[in-house]
Amino acid sequence: MKEFMDEDFLLTTETSRHLYHDYAAPMPIIDYHCHLSPKEIAEDAGFDNITQIWLGGDHYKWRQMRSNGVEERYITGDAPDREKFVKWAQTLEMAIGNPLYHWSHLELQRYFGYHGVLDGSTAGLVWDLCNEKLKTISARQLILDSNVEMIGTTDDPADDLRWHEKIAADPSFPVRVCPSWRPDAALLIEGADYTDYIKKLGEAADMEIGSVSDLKDALCKRMEYFDQRGCVVSDHGLEYVMYAPASDAEVEAIWQKWKAQGVLGKDEINKFKMNLLLFCARQYHRLGWAMQLHYGVKRDNNGRIFAALGKDAGIDSISSAAPVNELADFLNELEMTGELPKTILYSLNPIDNAAIGTVIGCFQSSEAVGKIQHGSAWWFNDNRAGMTEQMTSLANLGLLGNFIGMLTDSRSFLSYTRHEYFRRIFCDLIGAWVERGEYPANEASLKKIVEGVSYRNAKRYFGI
Amino acid sequence: MKEFMDEDFLLTTETSRHLYHDYAAPMPIIDYHCHLSPKEIAEDAGFDNITQIWLGGDHYKWRQMRSNGVEERYITGDAPDREKFVKWAQTLEMAIGNPLYHWSHLELQRYFGYHGVLDGSTAGLVWDLCNEKLKTISARQLILDSNVEMIGTTDDPADDLRWHEKIAADPSFPVRVCPSWRPDAALLIEGADYTDYIKKLGEAADMEIGSVSDLKDALCKRMEYFDQRGCVVSDHGLEYVMYAPASDAEVEAIWQKWKAQGVLGKDEINKFKMNLLLFCARQYHRLGWAMQLHYGVKRDNNGRIFAALGKDAGIDSISSAAPVNELADFLNELEMTGELPKTILYSLNPIDNAAIGTVIGCFQSSEAVGKIQHGSAWWFNDNRAGMTEQMTSLANLGLLGNFIGMLTDSRSFLSYTRHEYFRRIFCDLIGAWVERGEYPANEASLKKIVEGVSYRNAKRYFGI
Amino acid sequence: MKEFMDEDFLLTTETSRHLYHDYAAPMPIIDYHCHLSPKEIAEDAGFDNITQIWLGGDHYKWRQMRSNGVEERYITGDAPDREKFVKWAQTLEMAIGNPLYHWSHLELQRYFGYHGVLDGSTAGLVWDLCNEKLKTISARQLILDSNVEMIGTTDDPADDLRWHEKIAADPSFPVRVCPSWRPDAALLIEGADYTDYIKKLGEAADMEIGSVSDLKDALCKRMEYFDQRGCVVSDHGLEYVMYAPASDAEVEAIWQKWKAQGVLGKDEINKFKMNLLLFCARQYHRLGWAMQLHYGVKRDNNGRIFAALGKDAGIDSISSAAPVNELADFLNELEMTGELPKTILYSLNPIDNAAIGTVIGCFQSSEAVGKIQHGSAWWFNDNRAGMTEQMTSLANLGLLGNFIGMLTDSRSFLSYTRHEYFRRIFCDLIGAWVERGEYPANEASLKKIVEGVSYRNAKRYFGI
Repeated sequence: MKEFMDEDFLLTTETSRHLYHDYAAPMPIIDYHCHLSPKEIAEDAGFDNITQIWLGGDHYKWRQMRSNGVEERYITGDAPDREKFVKWAQTLEMAIGNPLYHWSHLELQRYFGYHGVLDGSTAGLVWDLCNEKLKTISARQLILDSNVEMIGTTDDPADDLRWHEKIAADPSFPVRVCPSWRPDAALLIEGADYTDYIKKLGEAADMEIGSVSDLKDALCKRMEYFDQRGCVVSDHGLEYVMYAPASDAEVEAIWQKWKAQGVLGKDEINKFKMNLLLFCARQYHRLGWAMQLHYGVKRDNNGRIFAALGKDAGIDSISSAAPVNELADFLNELEMTGELPKTILYSLNPIDNAAIGTVIGCFQSSEAVGKIQHGSAWWFNDNRAGMTEQMTSLANLGLLGNFIGMLTDSRSFLSYTRHEYFRRIFCDLIGAWVERGEYPANEASLKKIVEGVSYRNAKRYFGI
Repeated sequence: MKEFMDEDFLLTTETSRHLYHDYAAPMPIIDYHCHLSPKEIAEDAGFDNITQIWLGGDHYKWRQMRSNGVEERYITGDAPDREKFVKWAQTLEMAIGNPLYHWSHLELQRYFGYHGVLDGSTAGLVWDLCNEKLKTISARQLILDSNVEMIGTTDDPADDLRWHEKIAADPSFPVRVCPSWRPDAALLIEGADYTDYIKKLGEAADMEIGSVSDLKDALCKRMEYFDQRGCVVSDHGLEYVMYAPASDAEVEAIWQKWKAQGVLGKDEINKFKMNLLLFCARQYHRLGWAMQLHYGVKRDNNGRIFAALGKDAGIDSISSAAPVNELADFLNELEMTGELPKTILYSLNPIDNAAIGTVIGCFQSSEAVGKIQHGSAWWFNDNRAGMTEQMTSLANLGLLGNFIGMLTDSRSFLSYTRHEYFRRIFCDLIGAWVERGEYPANEASLKKIVEGVSYRNAKRYFGI
Repeated sequence: MKEFMDEDFLLTTETSRHLYHDYAAPMPIIDYHCHLSPKEIAEDAGFDNITQIWLGGDHYKWRQMRSNGVEERYITGDAPDREKFVKWAQTLEMAIGNPLYHWSHLELQRYFGYHGVLDGSTAGLVWDLCNEKLKTISARQLILDSNVEMIGTTDDPADDLRWHEKIAADPSFPVRVCPSWRPDAALLIEGADYTDYIKKLGEAADMEIGSVSDLKDALCKRMEYFDQRGCVVSDHGLEYVMYAPASDAEVEAIWQKWKAQGVLGKDEINKFKMNLLLFCARQYHRLGWAMQLHYGVKRDNNGRIFAALGKDAGIDSISSAAPVNELADFLNELEMTGELPKTILYSLNPIDNAAIGTVIGCFQSSEAVGKIQHGSAWWFNDNRAGMTEQMTSLANLGLLGNFIGMLTDSRSFLSYTRHEYFRRIFCDLIGAWVERGEYPANEASLKKIVEGVSYRNAKRYFGI
């Protein structure tokens, strides 16, 4: 029996161990998509206790505590932080096979030096140990200790990026912290606060927005602003990638209807979003940015919890209504005019893996190696089975060797261990193939592939 | 090479064997959902020969015989029982990898003491051996020998439950045989015999049913009746879980239209069913019952066989039209008023696993540990691959340690070996994780998890 | 570590190796569905160089080269053949885990005697070696060396089958080369050249086609023509299997509308196709042919490449819009009148595996052993994971022992190694089951199953 989560965790063959320890582990981290706070990086934030950093905003953990029958006051409520931590430790015992089990213990090992087990019986000990250690830990220290080279945050077009500027101006912190363009609010015409948002965006762009054409101008100005501050990648969160072509005139009429009546039909909303999405994509192509499309989510399903906690409360699910076919038509619309940007596709529904793997193959070109990417297993799929399936699918349908690999998508400074988790799983997968004689034990090729997927491919892809 | 189906069948690691033999195997069985006949239990039925018990009503086996080109008269027709048995034995040889291969041999081992192989060449021997043994076997003996603690049958609201009363009144039989509430007939307004059914239900409830409101009253009276006789769980079989909200007034109008015209549109049918389903669910919550939703089935596909044999003839398939999104909206409707009962979700389509796993996480609460459950791999998925996928998905997305585990869903008294099959697969899965260092080899935790999933979680969940 | 692709490639247990080498490998090949040119067989074509045979028409490889950022001129353009080959060799290095990696090396081993690795560094050596060897290789020699017993080509109803006649008349070539009936063009009423096609078909059938009734007569005449020349199987390529019943009169009206206006609605098109498909299926039943249905494809997604290269350019994807439910209704329509032919179902979407596995079980009968088949993993699924999933699904839901097994679906004379690839994967799958004690180590049964799936089942199924 292997020891619990030792240095060869997840590495089941000799070749896997060699590839991970000798090639993958030493590579720096390019974390091109996360939700870290640039303010906390700029200010080099510290942390009061482990509950704050672990349970403060982590809806992954909240779900599991609810599954364990824990009362909400120990999850998002006003119970003391120590008691919340104990409830989490007790929950973890039942989470056999869950990635949170591994993530939590990897974080305890790498950042707190604790190599034991966390459960109800050790919760008190771990609480003390972590909080003692947290006195010496800060946001920047965690980043530096994790060998991070680049961080891509997630930023609204109206954001002034002041914290990014501050970080860039500070020569004492060598890590590149790039803003990333996430214009969801600008497309969400059905949202209750869309009027307010448009006003805010207009102010950021220093102009009035009275039409779709104005909106596009404002977005363009903000894209230039982001580009000058190092942005290399955009991101869209969508229920699904629709294909609802409409002329600019038609979309202007939809906008006017919205202004007059405040309400639109589903078709009109889709046409509006589609038109803006196409516009944005063309700008990304012009600027050399990559376009990320995250879709297949049904959000805020539990109205009771949503009323109490709002968004990102652990009440989202995989949507069963996200047709891949429309996605292909959308990409083709851009391809037809030679304006398809580098694109990374993420569906929350793992049953889309194969279809996505075939769609990306239709739109590759010599503009970039691996121009269209099947993004790493996302959110609910970010676990050993999900990553293995995504990479096996990608290997079967495309070139795994050109995969740009992992991102944390996280709000926590402790999540860099997910890159380690990914690299171990990746090395275990291909190491086993080599051991079985399915790919040659050619050191040069394997080094190129492992370093590429761990680090170099993303560096080349984003041009950083 | 391991021996064919020996005592370590399906157990590939040392830890798996330890967990199964020491913790899982000794646990009693809670078979909370099956289709056993309470009459046969009450009367302690015997069996004439192995063909009757194996092929009399088992549409799983019928399908495979047809796949082997066997003529229908040897399947459901008038061929002699011995010849039917030989045809089944010949079919089995081709069923490599099929769960029926394992189920059949487990039943031969556990109930008939035959540890050899059944195929065409041994059919005669096995026929004689089984029939000899059957002279000494009865329904109750099979239940007792299988260490069953509780049986949940499947009963219509109009059923008088006389056989359940008889069993409960018999002190010589210690097993709890609970009725379970399956009101499909009461919702099936599009059925040809709905008028007759409503009349029958009215008689059972001792009232006239002239409106939806009456129908709800009648169902309520019958639920009380079931509750008093030990019912703890309901069950609904649905094409899909629709979400079609409608006011009570609208649904009364639909009912009146049905009475006047005898025919309704698809939308009207869905609104009617949805309204009744919501009503029932609220009662389940009040009574503390769990709600089972079985969906994703396309039934009676082969019109030729259906005309000859009727329902449950081995001509059903997985439906490709069962949106998980509507299911989430349905659950939320109940959650909004605090009336969501404990719920167990079963889709026949295995591609729904991940989506279901994320939906259940949205509706957990401190009302019960593991309040919303992803039901064990059902029907066509009730095999090693299907169970492993369901449990791996559940482990990745929720708390496998709180899973209420297996049920037979069977019409046969020999099917308790499916609990053994499930427990072996479960122990092999988590035993392998422990062996690979992915969960600590902590005896207390593993014992808790294995005994829980095998037995204790269901006992706690149903309050028995 | 196993050697790279040695004689035990993909065979991970002793039993797997025994089953493959002793039972599977010696079996002849029945390649009942491919796209080989009968002209090239008749003329015993030779090949100029390895680029022609490997990259001339292989859109599988084109996709991967584009994924590697290779310029189109090295893929389908006018770059010298040697340079194209080097680009392919460089691409292959990144294709770890891809079936093309294995297919390419199997072809190099079996037909060119090269057992090394092909990558950028060995491209020159391999180029010379292959081209030298190609001087001694011809189409017929490749077929004979591969132990092929029967080839089913893919032919249009209007084809005069002159090359098939030529081959049949040549006593020096013992391989049976059967035409297969692929009437896609006759159903594609929405196609731009449908008028021309109908004219051509009428000429082939020696009649005027002025109605649907005429069209059916013409198809019937051509079916007789094909039947007399050895046809045993048909094939339909469909977006999805629709179920859109319509009377003959209604379909004649649709035809007249098409003639008058040249354009039809989606519903009308589906009704027309459905009516013709039902008609054809009934004829297949009468003639004893098998019906293949290939569906779930979204074709020609990249308009830019389509404009340059036309169809089959590596720009197709898995369709997310192919409901299995309608397929079941379609099969039942034929079953109701006793006219359902032997049928083989292939969906390009692997998520349909389980649903298909349950649909086939509804329509089996004593007309043939394994009358309705779940076709071997197709196109994008034709890889180890895809085949393993299809066979595991089939084993769980039906009788794997009656599976008719592999076909190449290929345009290349080198693709017979895909049968070897399939047989290795199949033997590894069931060999592992035997090693784990899940099926008895019974030589007679295993021999029957392995020889059956490799060869004998297809021979029996097609009656050849």
